[in-house]
Amino acid sequence: MFAEIITIGDEILIGQIVDTNSAWIAQQLNLQGIRVRQITTSPDDKAGIIQAIDEASRRAGIILITGGLGPTRDDVTRGSLCEYFGSQLVFDEKAYAAIEQIFSRRKLPMIEENRNQALVPDNCTPLYNTCGTATGMWFEKEEKVYISMPGVPFEMKVMMETDVIPRLLRKFSFPGIIHRTIQTTGIGESFLSRKISAIEDELPSWIKLAYLPAVGTVRLRFSAYGSDKSEMEKALDEISQKIHKTVGEYIFGEGEITLAESVGKLLLEKGKTISTAESCTGGYLSHLLTSVPGSSSYYTGSIISYAYDMKIEQLNVDPESMAAYGAVSEQTVVRMAEEVRKKLKTDYSISTSGIAGPGGGTPEKPVGTVWIAVSSADKTVARKFLFENNRERNIQRSAMAGFDMLRKMILSI
Amino acid sequence: MFAEIITIGDEILIGQIVDTNSAWIAQQLNLQGIRVRQITTSPDDKAGIIQAIDEASRRAGIILITGGLGPTRDDVTRGSLCEYFGSQLVFDEKAYAAIEQIFSRRKLPMIEENRNQALVPDNCTPLYNTCGTATGMWFEKEEKVYISMPGVPFEMKVMMETDVIPRLLRKFSFPGIIHRTIQTTGIGESFLSRKISAIEDELPSWIKLAYLPAVGTVRLRFSAYGSDKSEMEKALDEISQKIHKTVGEYIFGEGEITLAESVGKLLLEKGKTISTAESCTGGYLSHLLTSVPGSSSYYTGSIISYAYDMKIEQLNVDPESMAAYGAVSEQTVVRMAEEVRKKLKTDYSISTSGIAGPGGGTPEKPVGTVWIAVSSADKTVARKFLFENNRERNIQRSAMAGFDMLRKMILSI
Repeated sequence: MFAEIITIGDEILIGQIVDTNSAWIAQQLNLQGIRVRQITTSPDDKAGIIQAIDEASRRAGIILITGGLGPTRDDVTRGSLCEYFGSQLVFDEKAYAAIEQIFSRRKLPMIEENRNQALVPDNCTPLYNTCGTATGMWFEKEEKVYISMPGVPFEMKVMMETDVIPRLLRKFSFPGIIHRTIQTTGIGESFLSRKISAIEDELPSWIKLAYLPAVGTVRLRFSAYGSDKSEMEKALDEISQKIHKTVGEYIFGEGEITLAESVGKLLLEKGKTISTAESCTGGYLSHLLTSVPGSSSYYTGSIISYAYDMKIEQLNVDPESMAAYGAVSEQTVVRMAEEVRKKLKTDYSISTSGIAGPGGGTPEKPVGTVWIAVSSADKTVARKFLFENNRERNIQRSAMAGFDMLRKMILSI
Repeated sequence: MFAEIITIGDEILIGQIVDTNSAWIAQQLNLQGIRVRQITTSPDDKAGIIQAIDEASRRAGIILITGGLGPTRDDVTRGSLCEYFGSQLVFDEKAYAAIEQIFSRRKLPMIEENRNQALVPDNCTPLYNTCGTATGMWFEKEEKVYISMPGVPFEMKVMMETDVIPRLLRKFSFPGIIHRTIQTTGIGESFLSRKISAIEDELPSWIKLAYLPAVGTVRLRFSAYGSDKSEMEKALDEISQKIHKTVGEYIFGEGEITLAESVGKLLLEKGKTISTAESCTGGYLSHLLTSVPGSSSYYTGSIISYAYDMKIEQLNVDPESMAAYGAVSEQTVVRMAEEVRKKLKTDYSISTSGIAGPGGGTPEKPVGTVWIAVSSADKTVARKFLFENNRERNIQRSAMAGFDMLRKMILSI
């Protein structure tokens, strides 16, 4: 049983936005053992949409469609589906109630365009949207399933997780697949691959390994295919143990955990607290920490000392030391980390100071030069990094490196 | 004359990587007035690739293919093209010389697999790769053009810019297309649509409007199709003026600008500076501000007062006022904004305090309740928002609302 994904939107076809929805949907399907045969981006017109659906249905049994649902007149998906399935639009009380709830929560008046969003094709199962006003649709025809979801990523994701995936699992039985993801940081893909090559060579044919690199981390995903779940789990447990034995120091977690979540979990377990003093990361460490629900249990706050003077005035960095060594120096980040830890009364702290770019580089300290320190009551450790000439990635890599240094300090590795 | 883009790769179909190549290619084509009819992601197998090419050729005259060219066994594109066009592989001296040059530059020895990359179909024009070892291919058949390029983004981009686009412009003449994007914030898609419906109704048939909503913003994209560029520009200018006249207060910029960039630009123009005091946004405002290159000209720093006590100790919020009104209150955010502005000596400041969720809500202050203040030497303005039950979006929407309040304060609207 193949699936296909159709994303609808002229904005994708003119390159204005990158289609991230289909990658996310493909990931979710893959986790359930559903293979995606093709991804298609179709224009916002009936002929194009109908042709894309028709072609996909010749190759696959599950067709997932996102985009082209909205209150404005550029909404053509619903009309195309009505034509394709010979539907009449009918007013749906529950869809209307769901839309009303969105508006009452937002304390906004509803207008006619929104009322129209409660009109659904009479031969589909409506998928009620708990986060937005576009109602999703589930059609069945000749043992094939066609699902239309909104294009707003957040709305689509909630609909997919809470409604579409459970319905698919009830309707079809997919081959058994179990994934085990091991998260590493502080080691590149090729080095990691070299270190675990003996384990990789010994994998049975029914277990596959994928390397999934992201900024500062590499996920190892082992996928076991089969019907005997307990045998599959046992084999994955054994592999996981071997991986831990071989590259344990680089492993920060299993499953879909972020490095910030993992650090938060560690702090929570130990009953410790954290603060940050950030220059080049400009609040990004703080943002990642506070993106985790419940982070107020261990995160106190931060001093984002972006300007030169602020490091002196808010973090007591010695002006003479700054003049001698520069804002991007071991001396500066050590002082920043120690000072913020004392000032905000936390057990640990992280500080950053670097040249994120594109401007500000010198021959001695080129763009990508970043100093990071982590501090506890016992000691302060500082490290210099040389990243690349890309502002966004330098900020991200600095944050990941800071978290990794903290993780190692907490675990004394 | 339509174009279609085919990206080849199982890694895209399992959601392991996001396909950014096709968005970039679509942008480049769009700039030349070439409309993309469909984007297709095909698996790494001959049957899938040939089917995708065949279907695309029924709809479009220009087929651009990326991916599936490389030295390892996952190279199937060339084989598929040979089958589709009935080609024989022949050794190409110039392709070989190009590959040799890559290896000598990288100081690496060539292996047999790389020599094979100099074999090209006898009925194509080879596109020599100046940045990598995979040779591109240009086929022509029945007035249609088929172009195969490597999947490595950097190699593909150079080939596209220096070779493929110039060849396309020599071979075809394309109709003109001009886009105009107007960015709005602080108004929902349906309200915006209602406000500009008269302008939309008057649009000539050769100008299309698309609404592109994101968190806190809606982009209006007008696309004019035609051959008389000055007439098209003039029509778009007139529409833009009408839109500004009708919903000007919600417009923060034109083109691909973010709200944080737009606020930064305003501050830079006026020679003013900004700081933030953040609770529920936890550094996100600061992160967005510092993501903009050159932001050190107007952004000084922030105090992220996540913990209750930190608001008192670092931002001098009156403990009695906090006890009486709570940390999420008008009184608290007003004090936070005023204090950080004075402490960090900036012209403006933004403060936030709210319940991002999922925990921490009460009947009186449910999850999604956020107070935001903006402050200048003249005045401080605070507003209460009721967002939703989603931590990530509450943080994002708070940041957008804070920037919008600041924008309005700076512009006195």
